[in-house]
Amino acid sequence: MNAQKMKIGILGTGTVGRGLAGKLTQLGHDVVMGTRDVASTLAVSKPDLFGEPPFSDWHKKNQKIRLDTFVKAAAHGEMVINATRGTVSLDVLRIAGAENLNGKVILDVANELDFSKGMPPRSLAKDEESLGERIQKAFPETQVVKSLNTMRASVMVDPAAVANGDHTVFVSGNDAGAKRVVVELLQSFGWKDVIDLGDITSARGTEMLLPVWLRLWGTLGTPDFNFKIARNLKRLWDRTSQSRQIIK
Amino acid sequence: MNAQKMKIGILGTGTVGRGLAGKLTQLGHDVVMGTRDVASTLAVSKPDLFGEPPFSDWHKKNQKIRLDTFVKAAAHGEMVINATRGTVSLDVLRIAGAENLNGKVILDVANELDFSKGMPPRSLAKDEESLGERIQKAFPETQVVKSLNTMRASVMVDPAAVANGDHTVFVSGNDAGAKRVVVELLQSFGWKDVIDLGDITSARGTEMLLPVWLRLWGTLGTPDFNFKIARNLKRLWDRTSQSRQIIK
Repeated sequence: MNAQKMKIGILGTGTVGRGLAGKLTQLGHDVVMGTRDVASTLAVSKPDLFGEPPFSDWHKKNQKIRLDTFVKAAAHGEMVINATRGTVSLDVLRIAGAENLNGKVILDVANELDFSKGMPPRSLAKDEESLGERIQKAFPETQVVKSLNTMRASVMVDPAAVANGDHTVFVSGNDAGAKRVVVELLQSFGWKDVIDLGDITSARGTEMLLPVWLRLWGTLGTPDFNFKIARNLKRLWDRTSQSRQIIK
Repeated sequence: MNAQKMKIGILGTGTVGRGLAGKLTQLGHDVVMGTRDVASTLAVSKPDLFGEPPFSDWHKKNQKIRLDTFVKAAAHGEMVINATRGTVSLDVLRIAGAENLNGKVILDVANELDFSKGMPPRSLAKDEESLGERIQKAFPETQVVKSLNTMRASVMVDPAAVANGDHTVFVSGNDAGAKRVVVELLQSFGWKDVIDLGDITSARGTEMLLPVWLRLWGTLGTPDFNFKIARNLKRLWDRTSQSRQIIK
């Protein structure tokens, strides 16, 4: 499998799914987006809870991108991206079916947020077991890579939009080959500083970044920011074999 | 109260307490460090769990800095710094006594980490109630400000040691005046990018940064790094009244 021209299934049709679908299509990948019920998703006529326009509005401008069921999108993908809300991700992946996921890289970009008590939502993340780990356990024949869950959707696919791209994206996962594919994809989006945090348990750390991210959005008055891991480059050059940093 | 030449009580004699005591004394503040039992602290002759040399070794080189009980250190301070392990902070503050804390700023730099299962320790932080909030609730007549809990001790007092100081420190607290005093202190250490996240509930976000910090230490092979919030400065200049950023 190669990061160039992949078949990719994206589960989820919200802001994150749309942003990734648009960029991946633009880069020449063959994308199918998956949803629970195609007719219902297309029938939505009002903006969602976050003010995001209906899917059909977006789809009119992105007609090349097919919309199908979770099952069909997963079956289509050589890589499957979990861009659903974290609180329903495991259910959605079960609907998609292990038989359509096994042997594939699952790029998990989701966060578990509880919106039931208003904004900002409460993060369910703890230093015990991340969503990424639970997905890996539930689908042991897949290679789960957690990434891109620590910034807004538009920055995920266009890092240069913030501080000329001088900031960091993390990857966590048990399989080195799967992480390599994801890192190549991230580089194709323009990411320059990719830090491999280690195995999938390290997703606990990135999932736990959400509460400070949400506060920063409020304080800075914009979601156009990101975490950068500031460090002394000279010392790091000696350690590039240990970590997958790409330093300009 | 003024950030210049304060009487400061520091609770805790570990790496963080020592680093802060040394820097604050160097800046002309009048520091008393507090410990549970002075004789026991001075009697320690072996490095601690983290390889930190015994307190007495450090104290020989820092004889101007007095060591006393938690009670005496708190009573001494116009500001009191909680530099104890987060899992014992509330106990220590109760020993120090509300009567020695009331009306004062408590700068809380602690994190709740469970070392019982080896390294890296597990963070107990959740998006429910931070240690900072629990301290504020237990001592309602104090002004708790959470800060400096997101980087190693040496970087707290010498931000220029990492990436020429181009990275971020956060403050959280309910009292604007107390935060102003802390921000002035941070600036006197050399901090240039101080972000006021809001009230003390925002300490949940910074306390939850520890798991990714600990993973980064492992991945990068050094604790000499820090979080920087990368953003587009032009847009932020318009918002400086909302947030307490100090941008070069």
